Amino acid sequence: MALANRSLVTIDDLSNGEIESLFALADDMHGDMDKQLGLCRGKIMASLFFEPSTRTRLSFETAMHKLGGSVISVVDIKATSLAKDESIADMARVVGSYADIIVVRHPWEGAAKVIADYAGVPVINAGDGGHEHPTQTLCDLYTLKKERHTLKGLRIALWGDLKHGRTIHSLTYALARFGAIIHFRSGQGLELPEYVKRKLETEYTGRLERYENLGNLLKEGHFPIDAIYITPSSPHQLANIPDVSIRVELEKGVEALYVTRLQKERLSTKAGVEELKEDYPVVDKKLLKEKEFAETLVLHPLPRVDELARELDADPRSMYFKQAALGVPVRMALIALLLGAKKTPVTKEDDSFIRKIEHPPCKYVYGVKCPNRNCISRHETKYIKPEFILVCRRPLILRCVYCEHEVSPPYIASSEWHEGVLIHKHYHSADSHWAKKIRAENLIIFNSEKEAESHGFKPSHYAKKRYRINKKKDDS
Amino acid sequence: MALANRSLVTIDDLSNGEIESLFALADDMHGDMDKQLGLCRGKIMASLFFEPSTRTRLSFETAMHKLGGSVISVVDIKATSLAKDESIADMARVVGSYADIIVVRHPWEGAAKVIADYAGVPVINAGDGGHEHPTQTLCDLYTLKKERHTLKGLRIALWGDLKHGRTIHSLTYALARFGAIIHFRSGQGLELPEYVKRKLETEYTGRLERYENLGNLLKEGHFPIDAIYITPSSPHQLANIPDVSIRVELEKGVEALYVTRLQKERLSTKAGVEELKEDYPVVDKKLLKEKEFAETLVLHPLPRVDELARELDADPRSMYFKQAALGVPVRMALIALLLGAKKTPVTKEDDSFIRKIEHPPCKYVYGVKCPNRNCISRHETKYIKPEFILVCRRPLILRCVYCEHEVSPPYIASSEWHEGVLIHKHYHSADSHWAKKIRAENLIIFNSEKEAESHGFKPSHYAKKRYRINKKKDDS
Amino acid sequence: MALANRSLVTIDDLSNGEIESLFALADDMHGDMDKQLGLCRGKIMASLFFEPSTRTRLSFETAMHKLGGSVISVVDIKATSLAKDESIADMARVVGSYADIIVVRHPWEGAAKVIADYAGVPVINAGDGGHEHPTQTLCDLYTLKKERHTLKGLRIALWGDLKHGRTIHSLTYALARFGAIIHFRSGQGLELPEYVKRKLETEYTGRLERYENLGNLLKEGHFPIDAIYITPSSPHQLANIPDVSIRVELEKGVEALYVTRLQKERLSTKAGVEELKEDYPVVDKKLLKEKEFAETLVLHPLPRVDELARELDADPRSMYFKQAALGVPVRMALIALLLGAKKTPVTKEDDSFIRKIEHPPCKYVYGVKCPNRNCISRHETKYIKPEFILVCRRPLILRCVYCEHEVSPPYIASSEWHEGVLIHKHYHSADSHWAKKIRAENLIIFNSEKEAESHGFKPSHYAKKRYRINKKKDDS
Repeated sequence: MALANRSLVTIDDLSNGEIESLFALADDMHGDMDKQLGLCRGKIMASLFFEPSTRTRLSFETAMHKLGGSVISVVDIKATSLAKDESIADMARVVGSYADIIVVRHPWEGAAKVIADYAGVPVINAGDGGHEHPTQTLCDLYTLKKERHTLKGLRIALWGDLKHGRTIHSLTYALARFGAIIHFRSGQGLELPEYVKRKLETEYTGRLERYENLGNLLKEGHFPIDAIYITPSSPHQLANIPDVSIRVELEKGVEALYVTRLQKERLSTKAGVEELKEDYPVVDKKLLKEKEFAETLVLHPLPRVDELARELDADPRSMYFKQAALGVPVRMALIALLLGAKKTPVTKEDDSFIRKIEHPPCKYVYGVKCPNRNCISRHETKYIKPEFILVCRRPLILRCVYCEHEVSPPYIASSEWHEGVLIHKHYHSADSHWAKKIRAENLIIFNSEKEAESHGFKPSHYAKKRYRINKKKDDS
Repeated sequence: MALANRSLVTIDDLSNGEIESLFALADDMHGDMDKQLGLCRGKIMASLFFEPSTRTRLSFETAMHKLGGSVISVVDIKATSLAKDESIADMARVVGSYADIIVVRHPWEGAAKVIADYAGVPVINAGDGGHEHPTQTLCDLYTLKKERHTLKGLRIALWGDLKHGRTIHSLTYALARFGAIIHFRSGQGLELPEYVKRKLETEYTGRLERYENLGNLLKEGHFPIDAIYITPSSPHQLANIPDVSIRVELEKGVEALYVTRLQKERLSTKAGVEELKEDYPVVDKKLLKEKEFAETLVLHPLPRVDELARELDADPRSMYFKQAALGVPVRMALIALLLGAKKTPVTKEDDSFIRKIEHPPCKYVYGVKCPNRNCISRHETKYIKPEFILVCRRPLILRCVYCEHEVSPPYIASSEWHEGVLIHKHYHSADSHWAKKIRAENLIIFNSEKEAESHGFKPSHYAKKRYRINKKKDDS
Repeated sequence: MALANRSLVTIDDLSNGEIESLFALADDMHGDMDKQLGLCRGKIMASLFFEPSTRTRLSFETAMHKLGGSVISVVDIKATSLAKDESIADMARVVGSYADIIVVRHPWEGAAKVIADYAGVPVINAGDGGHEHPTQTLCDLYTLKKERHTLKGLRIALWGDLKHGRTIHSLTYALARFGAIIHFRSGQGLELPEYVKRKLETEYTGRLERYENLGNLLKEGHFPIDAIYITPSSPHQLANIPDVSIRVELEKGVEALYVTRLQKERLSTKAGVEELKEDYPVVDKKLLKEKEFAETLVLHPLPRVDELARELDADPRSMYFKQAALGVPVRMALIALLLGAKKTPVTKEDDSFIRKIEHPPCKYVYGVKCPNRNCISRHETKYIKPEFILVCRRPLILRCVYCEHEVSPPYIASSEWHEGVLIHKHYHSADSHWAKKIRAENLIIFNSEKEAESHGFKPSHYAKKRYRINKKKDDS
């Protein structure tokens, strides 16, 4: 599969084999770092940063310059026409007619997808809100590969703000796909979002064991942990991992410890920041003296605040500055491949750690909005209608195609009535047995009785009862 | 006439023939878009954007990169030394000593002229307040030329914010010069400024017929219109166009519909925005279904807000994204020509649609300021004195050489007294018969009795009377 | 001494000979200004401007482009990750792993030194608060050299805001090193900082005569002056310049007049700006008509406000726009040398105007902070501990190694007690005779009795007395 003309919006846009090939090219680039390559001469990269950033933007721009290309950039939302109510879809189209490739960072989750949908040129997601940051993941993996010589079956701990950390989300998926054992440990109230956990459990082949259930598996003195994610030791193996192997895995310790800062800017209020800090995991000299971390690499996407002590900077296990430096050859390789300036044979890498569940799209959804206020579908309303895929039937769970947050609307119906099969247009409660009975392609979903009725549906017996209960609540 | 080393401040800085030649070069550039040209290697373009912009700035920067040149840019007034009270004339001189060409956008009207006066290198106006935006006009015309194969005698409607829309002003002049028939339709209170109308009537060869006078010419069902501007069908023809041909023109409909958004940022207060929006013309699918728009191209300088419906994006008549894309080759051609990196034979194009009235400069003007608070002459007072040309004798109308707004000072005198011809130094009311009697080169203009008297003039009989009336008003 | 891989943080990082060689290379660059040189092709310059600037940033970026190199830039602190509490040391490391050279402007004094300490690549200080701005000094000197054909023994007046003007500080040191006679004249309250005066008196070979003492040396009608700095007419000569030669120097007038604006943005409050302006020296046509300025060049680092009249712009003595223009070849030469892209034989220039006093570092300093709130050591506390050198024993004066501001802590002790020589660990008042007695390498310095006592020291007899006095004051 050629990478030319494709976009990188989520880490899953690249297969394991493609990632390995990209790293092989990055190795070549790394060897040529002190001379300018003419590979992208005459090509234009638009660097659109609608959120503060130094590191990522400069890393991309450096990469493009080293490839001999040119850069045009927008670095602050206030300095752009977007202030004039312009849609980012329009902006994407226009910039796509100037540039050969677009790199975008945006505070709204799903923004990169929308830009990729409209730009007409390859788009690289350099971070969309708290959603994903796939090129950071490529830098992380590349550093691990350089040090451990393989990406497969890594034992790694992810610490810090697992809720808002987009680098965490992208990295988790990638690690899972390469068969890693992941130890999660978050600050209080900063656990992995439900939708990420569900993806791990439904779309990748592993088993996520939450702390509550780990009690008897943890030996005294084991460092704290929220959850552990275990993938089978060989592809295609089923995920029925026995408790005994979880205990074994826990005892092995980790090869790498990936820490992130508290993403203050993603909190809805500033109240409580101090509390969140109190319980926040910290990596320092004392911690790294523990036997189980003797050979553990320390990674951090930077910038750091207090969760990673300066005293570690000279420690040979500290990888974070190297990680940043390796961002340049990785991004050079990525840009060159997406622009088609370089072709590389894709390793026939087995991607089968991923169960590859393709959730069906929800064709008929009425009145349902993505619950994530930060989702692009809540802002870019002129171009974009909410769109969902059906992740689970019972309980009914839809996933937003833009930001991947989940929503569980209360009512459903079948579209088959209009084929003449059903005499009455009835709608049902989403938690009734109908949720499993109606075929996915016929499923109609409503956010309220009103919505259902405005489409000409009448409540079924069960739905009616629920409606009465709701009404009572409203009246009292 | 060679273009090298010249500036483009208003669209009238280019003759019709020069525009046609520039487009011929843009055609060549367009063919070479995917390779970098070495034409401007080693040249520096300074991109000075003192007002929010994405599109225009990125378009210029893309153009320069594609020519092989380099770009230095300033994208926000707060990030510049101008915050330290520096004059833009000083800034122009300094940047002119670094760069080979300057592209500037500024919120003050006339700023581009001042920068061109001081920089010592070619300057391109990328928008100065609500005044002009000549390169947008070049993109608009180039799109029209590509589609209609000629620029001459186009029938076009200009809709929207005709008052603040600088793209409208530049485009109107250019269209008039190429002999267009223009239908104007604005939102309420957003009509073409008086000074633009006067320019059309006094400097170009056409006839502007206002709506009030069109009543009996408009057939029922004709879409709304404020005014129509008709140029003679052949050069040199006089502008005494009979009513019957206006009626004929109205019935022909338009080949293109140029829409603009409400320029909210130019309104002095935010009060009334909602009202302005209410009556604002909107282009949508329904409108374009009207028979008279069957073959009408839709243009828009972007960004759009609500005046141009998204549902038209896939319509083959929609030209706005193409318009944006064509900005790159047009700007490449312009930059290459002004830098002298490319020479092109100028078509011997007949420019005679313009009557070419050269209004005389006002040599002696005392105490008169430009009435436009947004004019550069009101801000850059250390370098710039107000300067005017004499547009009309009776009523006395001066036009600011920077922003082209008009002012009508109350008193005049003749400078001939000091030649010994006049015994008494008298000043007169500007609406007296003296306004026509005094020769232009001798005309002295005052903004007040006080100013006139401080220059040693005494009131003439008529001026005295007026003075008494004014005094009474002040006393009461 | 090769310049490759070195940083330019203060003007003293370059020897006189290196400055002369750099100018020889700038002459070559100046001759090649209209073509792009391939000298730095493939090299990346990071341009980090954490304070408003147009001129300096654009000048550096122009220089790099003309050398064929590429530029990545950060132009506003709010647009960077630093907003996320990141340390500039971390930022320096990361950017140093992308770029081959870093140019930095920062509002904190000493910031450039910290960045140079951590970046791992050459760093150029483009202004750190009110501290230094060495490349402006290079432009100033280069302009003087072009006009006067030598840098040695210039007679020059420095006017304006001598307190906050970083260009003034850097220029003063450089002029002193080249054996200049400097006439200082500041606005009221804007005199040269004490630490700069002390550097002139202790580290350079000259004599600083303050106005109070000049009374009888100034002839009537001599233009105002605060102080005069006189260096010996030949190297190695002692600085015991007799009054008579000061009188002679004063009468000779100056070859150049260097004016600066009031650095409003460095004032702690806006109160008093109007007062400061009142007494501020102004250079205008009238002044330059004075006989003593007949051949005086006028320099100004720009931007100007009102201290330099526009009416002088066309005067052949006005050098300020030329100065700005010459910044490009000077910076081209500097970048090329630091990157090792060009080597130039260093003139065996005699640097001996500098007495080259190497002040010893203070090894044991407890509780002492730099008194300058704007010093990097007050902000970047996670990485940086306050560090001082010992400038004077009695009175005890320490100089901050970051911003060069001075501090005089109250208590001292000797570290020799722990060698067993002293039986009791006593601390002494810094103004006691012990200040001279304790060897520099043994000197311990405390900011308070409490600090001394917390280190196990007891007060000596004299210190006790002082302590009692202080206590009384606190109690009352």
